[in-house]
Amino acid sequence: MPFHYIQPPVFINRAGSVDRFDRKVSQWIVPWEEGQEVEAGLIGVPLSRSSISPSAASEAPNALRGVWKSFAAYDVDHDVDLTRIRAADFGDIAMHVTDIPRCHQNIEAGVLEMLEASRDFPSFLPVILGGDHSITCPALKGLARFHTGKRIGLIQFDTHFDVRNLEDGGPSNGTPIRGLLESGTLRGEDIFQIGIHSFANALAHKEYAEEQGITYATMRQVRQEGLLSILERFVKILRQQVDGIYITVDIDVLDLACLPGSPGPSPGGMQPWELFDAVHRLGQEDKVLALDLVCLDPFRDRGQLSVKTGAHVILSFLSGYCQRLQQKGP
Amino acid sequence: MPFHYIQPPVFINRAGSVDRFDRKVSQWIVPWEEGQEVEAGLIGVPLSRSSISPSAASEAPNALRGVWKSFAAYDVDHDVDLTRIRAADFGDIAMHVTDIPRCHQNIEAGVLEMLEASRDFPSFLPVILGGDHSITCPALKGLARFHTGKRIGLIQFDTHFDVRNLEDGGPSNGTPIRGLLESGTLRGEDIFQIGIHSFANALAHKEYAEEQGITYATMRQVRQEGLLSILERFVKILRQQVDGIYITVDIDVLDLACLPGSPGPSPGGMQPWELFDAVHRLGQEDKVLALDLVCLDPFRDRGQLSVKTGAHVILSFLSGYCQRLQQKGP
Amino acid sequence: MPFHYIQPPVFINRAGSVDRFDRKVSQWIVPWEEGQEVEAGLIGVPLSRSSISPSAASEAPNALRGVWKSFAAYDVDHDVDLTRIRAADFGDIAMHVTDIPRCHQNIEAGVLEMLEASRDFPSFLPVILGGDHSITCPALKGLARFHTGKRIGLIQFDTHFDVRNLEDGGPSNGTPIRGLLESGTLRGEDIFQIGIHSFANALAHKEYAEEQGITYATMRQVRQEGLLSILERFVKILRQQVDGIYITVDIDVLDLACLPGSPGPSPGGMQPWELFDAVHRLGQEDKVLALDLVCLDPFRDRGQLSVKTGAHVILSFLSGYCQRLQQKGP
Amino acid sequence: MPFHYIQPPVFINRAGSVDRFDRKVSQWIVPWEEGQEVEAGLIGVPLSRSSISPSAASEAPNALRGVWKSFAAYDVDHDVDLTRIRAADFGDIAMHVTDIPRCHQNIEAGVLEMLEASRDFPSFLPVILGGDHSITCPALKGLARFHTGKRIGLIQFDTHFDVRNLEDGGPSNGTPIRGLLESGTLRGEDIFQIGIHSFANALAHKEYAEEQGITYATMRQVRQEGLLSILERFVKILRQQVDGIYITVDIDVLDLACLPGSPGPSPGGMQPWELFDAVHRLGQEDKVLALDLVCLDPFRDRGQLSVKTGAHVILSFLSGYCQRLQQKGP
Amino acid sequence: MPFHYIQPPVFINRAGSVDRFDRKVSQWIVPWEEGQEVEAGLIGVPLSRSSISPSAASEAPNALRGVWKSFAAYDVDHDVDLTRIRAADFGDIAMHVTDIPRCHQNIEAGVLEMLEASRDFPSFLPVILGGDHSITCPALKGLARFHTGKRIGLIQFDTHFDVRNLEDGGPSNGTPIRGLLESGTLRGEDIFQIGIHSFANALAHKEYAEEQGITYATMRQVRQEGLLSILERFVKILRQQVDGIYITVDIDVLDLACLPGSPGPSPGGMQPWELFDAVHRLGQEDKVLALDLVCLDPFRDRGQLSVKTGAHVILSFLSGYCQRLQQKGP
Amino acid sequence: MPFHYIQPPVFINRAGSVDRFDRKVSQWIVPWEEGQEVEAGLIGVPLSRSSISPSAASEAPNALRGVWKSFAAYDVDHDVDLTRIRAADFGDIAMHVTDIPRCHQNIEAGVLEMLEASRDFPSFLPVILGGDHSITCPALKGLARFHTGKRIGLIQFDTHFDVRNLEDGGPSNGTPIRGLLESGTLRGEDIFQIGIHSFANALAHKEYAEEQGITYATMRQVRQEGLLSILERFVKILRQQVDGIYITVDIDVLDLACLPGSPGPSPGGMQPWELFDAVHRLGQEDKVLALDLVCLDPFRDRGQLSVKTGAHVILSFLSGYCQRLQQKGP
Repeated sequence: MPFHYIQPPVFINRAGSVDRFDRKVSQWIVPWEEGQEVEAGLIGVPLSRSSISPSAASEAPNALRGVWKSFAAYDVDHDVDLTRIRAADFGDIAMHVTDIPRCHQNIEAGVLEMLEASRDFPSFLPVILGGDHSITCPALKGLARFHTGKRIGLIQFDTHFDVRNLEDGGPSNGTPIRGLLESGTLRGEDIFQIGIHSFANALAHKEYAEEQGITYATMRQVRQEGLLSILERFVKILRQQVDGIYITVDIDVLDLACLPGSPGPSPGGMQPWELFDAVHRLGQEDKVLALDLVCLDPFRDRGQLSVKTGAHVILSFLSGYCQRLQQKGP
Repeated sequence: MPFHYIQPPVFINRAGSVDRFDRKVSQWIVPWEEGQEVEAGLIGVPLSRSSISPSAASEAPNALRGVWKSFAAYDVDHDVDLTRIRAADFGDIAMHVTDIPRCHQNIEAGVLEMLEASRDFPSFLPVILGGDHSITCPALKGLARFHTGKRIGLIQFDTHFDVRNLEDGGPSNGTPIRGLLESGTLRGEDIFQIGIHSFANALAHKEYAEEQGITYATMRQVRQEGLLSILERFVKILRQQVDGIYITVDIDVLDLACLPGSPGPSPGGMQPWELFDAVHRLGQEDKVLALDLVCLDPFRDRGQLSVKTGAHVILSFLSGYCQRLQQKGP
Repeated sequence: MPFHYIQPPVFINRAGSVDRFDRKVSQWIVPWEEGQEVEAGLIGVPLSRSSISPSAASEAPNALRGVWKSFAAYDVDHDVDLTRIRAADFGDIAMHVTDIPRCHQNIEAGVLEMLEASRDFPSFLPVILGGDHSITCPALKGLARFHTGKRIGLIQFDTHFDVRNLEDGGPSNGTPIRGLLESGTLRGEDIFQIGIHSFANALAHKEYAEEQGITYATMRQVRQEGLLSILERFVKILRQQVDGIYITVDIDVLDLACLPGSPGPSPGGMQPWELFDAVHRLGQEDKVLALDLVCLDPFRDRGQLSVKTGAHVILSFLSGYCQRLQQKGP
Repeated sequence: MPFHYIQPPVFINRAGSVDRFDRKVSQWIVPWEEGQEVEAGLIGVPLSRSSISPSAASEAPNALRGVWKSFAAYDVDHDVDLTRIRAADFGDIAMHVTDIPRCHQNIEAGVLEMLEASRDFPSFLPVILGGDHSITCPALKGLARFHTGKRIGLIQFDTHFDVRNLEDGGPSNGTPIRGLLESGTLRGEDIFQIGIHSFANALAHKEYAEEQGITYATMRQVRQEGLLSILERFVKILRQQVDGIYITVDIDVLDLACLPGSPGPSPGGMQPWELFDAVHRLGQEDKVLALDLVCLDPFRDRGQLSVKTGAHVILSFLSGYCQRLQQKGP
Repeated sequence: MPFHYIQPPVFINRAGSVDRFDRKVSQWIVPWEEGQEVEAGLIGVPLSRSSISPSAASEAPNALRGVWKSFAAYDVDHDVDLTRIRAADFGDIAMHVTDIPRCHQNIEAGVLEMLEASRDFPSFLPVILGGDHSITCPALKGLARFHTGKRIGLIQFDTHFDVRNLEDGGPSNGTPIRGLLESGTLRGEDIFQIGIHSFANALAHKEYAEEQGITYATMRQVRQEGLLSILERFVKILRQQVDGIYITVDIDVLDLACLPGSPGPSPGGMQPWELFDAVHRLGQEDKVLALDLVCLDPFRDRGQLSVKTGAHVILSFLSGYCQRLQQKGP
Repeated sequence: MPFHYIQPPVFINRAGSVDRFDRKVSQWIVPWEEGQEVEAGLIGVPLSRSSISPSAASEAPNALRGVWKSFAAYDVDHDVDLTRIRAADFGDIAMHVTDIPRCHQNIEAGVLEMLEASRDFPSFLPVILGGDHSITCPALKGLARFHTGKRIGLIQFDTHFDVRNLEDGGPSNGTPIRGLLESGTLRGEDIFQIGIHSFANALAHKEYAEEQGITYATMRQVRQEGLLSILERFVKILRQQVDGIYITVDIDVLDLACLPGSPGPSPGGMQPWELFDAVHRLGQEDKVLALDLVCLDPFRDRGQLSVKTGAHVILSFLSGYCQRLQQKGP
């Protein structure tokens, strides 16, 4: 493989099924081979030593690979057969054990490398499997370098603003949005945050977000207006404002009772099915360029509840994307 | 016993109460004695070696018996005093350690035996405690033999269609509906499935269900229309079409966050209170002949969450049934 | 300290923050020092040997103190900066190891003592951290003695009526409401219970509640009418009827899937966000004099889910109270 | 019952076996019926609200009853068929919910009642299932009243001296030995403690024990000399000094890694097999009159490890007792 | 692949190492490719629906594959570099979902198939990864067919005799030794059992074992004489008596505190390091033909304790085997 | 405070006791105040983002502080009253969120700072609470700078050699010994490692250790010779060879069944009581200058088993040190 920053996938399995007609996701998402044309590409970013509180989110890419065999590649809720598109796993971006800045550089370079490798594919959507939320800054920078000259917007599902200052602790999982603003990668008015929640954010961070022109919806607003309604409003604005949209899902946006496997969730958070509906909708949206899923910590999980929920997020998004491609059609 | 300071040993379902006015379910559901007339009869089917993935659902009947002492025999939500009807536990259908076909034969024979024993009771409703979902096929066959000549319909709460082919693995927990169709016990148009969910079913199984004329509602439809509304539609059709209705509740229809104790649940599944309302409603329905509860695995449970939820399903159903009998009343 | 590289030891509730702008609840709720004027005072009541079933609710006050450092003292959902009011922790009421009646006497005396100590503060709201539900009887008696001559009402969030007879087992966590009625501390028509749930209450207790003129809303009514709507009705009545309102939150009102850490929750219970909204609303209400939180058992908890949920209840209530004080303003 | 396919319901301790030749302990220890002559009698003492730290040891008697079905009534290690003697479960001594002194009175009266009921049996050995360690004081008092005029000695397996003063907290699980000394039930020189361990005992308690003439062996001495050797020394002294010996096993003497289910165990404690050997040896000893097992908390257990270990203690003791009776023979 | 009964390994990973000099077991045990000559071959037998109590031992082969990456392929305790021999994973023997007799036939055929495929290798040692203990009967039959005419002996590490009658429940995990005796595959005097333990075996089974001439050592004998000393005695006898020795390790021989992941372990069982030493010794023994490891249930495990312990058993055995081959030398 | 019924809030390490004669470790180890003379000083090093596999060892210092209240400050096994010496907690060395090299610099500077602050105390022994094993390299460097000109030796309890190369991943928890050798801080012949275990170390690392002249004892040697015997041999050599000895305890040396709370333990490891005896012995040794305890991960722990075991290690060491000082006497 010609990659410098990406290692081949550590493959958990190619488990078959007890029923010859039951096609599993593990049979659909195959290890990518050089030159292989696909419509969707997954890539792991096993970094979580940059997390403020201890996190094993570095183990999430392999944990997700490990549960593909438990999911069918068919979405009966929307009647979408995922196997109509082709999907591959590009492996993991190479990380260093103790040099965090180098890890962040590798992420930017690795995402760019993946996009370069798929430049000529008729359609290609990267799905980035974190890692903690610090990865979103370099990942989005890599995507922005690939799309140089284009204006990129961000839709973020998160309990937190993630705009801590970079002086106190460097680029951690509390700073990605600030890093993207301070580096000029994104403009504040192109950032839309959903799920911001009580007692999980400092007043100073809310003030910073407002100063930067960030739009946000609290969990209370989500309950009052409905998630899909808020999302449509945000998408409508972004569609007019930007050339492409990046989606970042901090899994800690979900209710703590439904998502034990993350350092960040609060009681009273978003319900999983709300998030599934939202990312399905975003998968359909033409301007959406990529999605990342971060802060999923398999070591804190119970009985695969969180890992399966994370897998459902990815698959729901890909199901919407599948509909997008089918509508375009040949 | 002449003791003043010593109480008799506390066995699983004869637990007393710390309050003389608080009548527990363990005091209401008593071991059945031959000839004893009751309105409701529970029977255990401790079989789960027929499950595709490892399951201890065989332990569910005893686990449910073990929590009756934690529940009051009064439904304050509907103001129903369960002790107005009589209920008994008929014990377990005998299983073989390694001969699965014989187990299935015993289930059919055992359900029939229970129904024969209660043939002369003015009212009698069997509640079958699985076991994995493979038991529904022989249990319903046993019931159909008892009601020979009558047309039976099925309402199924389930994440899955359960129509896998019988050639690949024999009669497992993935095949009961197919077994009932292929044996001619049920017609496709008399089968109504609720809670079918994304990434848990193969396209081939959805196509088979449609070919057979099965009606199903996905979880997305449940969220959009509401469970009780869907249920009324289905009941209305069935009431005209069949002579009797069998209810099967695969507990994996519930959301994985609420139901760790089963091999099958998905994130984004049904909420427990929705299911309680639905089975309460079905208990009221005249044509309903029996209910089974399957795929409850106490070994995967956490802190009795799933077992207590299963118990609530049974009690909600019996509460509705209690209302049905009171309306008939003398 | 002259050190450059060493920080003082981190004790439970003095945790610093990785971000100098992020003020934590542990920095806001400080140990009370004699004479210190505050608007809110927390006090622990570490008693749970009076619980019918084994409970470690005695550990809840310290468990709550231990998670304050995980919460920001800002409520973005309502845009309330908690640090606008002053809050202190008064410590624990002294308990005896084996003399339960003496514990209950201490609670009454201790609550009175706290109120006497804050008599001259312009505003003061006690928050009582149980302990099991038996503590509500002496705590409310202490408050009533302080407010002698005033008529006190009660709003109770609970799965249970808590009106067991006092003869069979003495003053346990099943009896507080009965104790308050029999002692003449409260009148039945001033008691409003929300969240009463199926199979968790005896018929006899429902009949007693009705005889006493208690108003209650079952979980089914909560689902049908909505919690805030019911609450407004109850508050409106109480506002006209009484001089002051005491709030008691038995955390077992919450759904068992969301609240493993209590002996009492049922499947199908209240959702945490509903409860947060309700206590926030009550914090705003002028006549509300105090709140207690009981039956939170950290030993049954999983991954701090229940303790964090309990903390959220307290903080949501204080956020509403903060709004109340700001509206009064100077 | 005339059924062919249905077995009677399985209650906690009447479990059958999958093998007709495999006799389980649940088939051997039957509920005692008045007048029934047995050689061994078990009795439960479900009290743990007298524990200093929260404990669910009150649930231990039923937890032990629940695992009898997992054990064969044959000790292959010593080739002893337990079914050669008769054993029965006398039930539980009645407890009060909030009156701890009354509970202790009931224990003394209940043990006496059990002994009176079996006064005429040729052989009878009571086995007392706690409860926390506070029960040993009234239980031994009850036994001493039955054996009035006889001098009773004590062998205690424990991490702790259990001689806290009675003034600070009353008769808790930290005081039984002091209570027995201060009441004159036992003399210090007749008390032998084994397993006393570092960092689990105050200097003051060691000094009190020495003042009273108590003999003790620390865990370090157990490791250096060997448990059986120490035990023989102690038994030899006691045999000459007293008329009867009471054995109290505080399960917290075991290593924390082997015994999660107790508030008290330390790292570096006794290994289970050492304790099994010791109680087997004591079962053989003619002067041994009774054994209690305390501080087994099923709520802190993991996967029945502690409950099964507790069951093994009881069965090992009864196996030794069985050998004692066989040697006496007819 | 020319196999009929064996499926390719479901490969959990080929994870590399963070240190280029650190060769992991996952890099050493590679998927076998047809014709590839190796000295050791692993094969999975994912069957546990034949277990008396619910078991997920069917998941053990993949669980073991999943932890190879956590182990170095070097045994510093004996200074053995495992990579001096070649090892491969032959995959899993094909199982049927509901036809247990067919599963047992496949095991016999699959083991034979593996041995035929390696007939011409200079040295070849199969390691069979169960599955529950029922697999030992067909696996050893398969091996005996390959070695037709040779007399085979058995060394069994087990808490249980495993000689239940075959009439009551068919060939389950309680019957393998009886199955081997009744089929004439083994003679009683060639069977040596180690670790038989109290309260885990019926008297009838001990009597059967003695009638058949089986030699056994209880756990008490293991403690008194020492495991290696007993083992040397048994090996010495077998060496003279038989042509080849099969080793079966029922992991339930280990102490329950060290091995939560199995339905069978007792308190007071064997310590892991004793078993590691024993299988290392047996790996060195010329007449040893194969080893199986059974009744390892990953669903009951805690934090991979049992799976890692099982992995250590396999690796210790292979380390001894490695020494055997090196002594033979070229 | 003038209260009669209210006690001050209980913070983590100021917990009182239910018995006035029972002095807890939390009452003995107090926060250090500038200039305060003590004989023992604890300091936390909350760094574990340098761990190869995800670790929350950064939480160990606070976890240990949290359990001091569960331990008595008296060692009955050796009859040592710890309160005869004075002990204080110096707090934590300041860490950076994302800059690992700066963390390591701070550790070296912080240890030096602590030693400078106590330079004039008659006796002073630092106890360093990690953190992962990477901290040992800078901590020992800090100590060596304080003792410039003195030759320092190392006794290491560990499953691993910890001599990975520094090129592949920088200074992680796999490299501390190599870092100390390459920096010239230690000589190979002054390093003694105990507990090195099978399948946890690469051949290359054993060869490197031998090349460097490191002496090591494998777990097998520990079992054969006995830990204390090996230790005496090593101490005797070191006593002649060096001026001072540093002790590093990687808690992963312990058996995985006894120590779930660490990324590194193996089955078959050291028993806790062996380690307690060893560090007690080292506490007595005049040349011992300091001890660190590393790789204790409270997030992987179960029920405080590992944290309490770690606390026992610290206290056993301090007990030995207490004896050392008492022998010196005044």
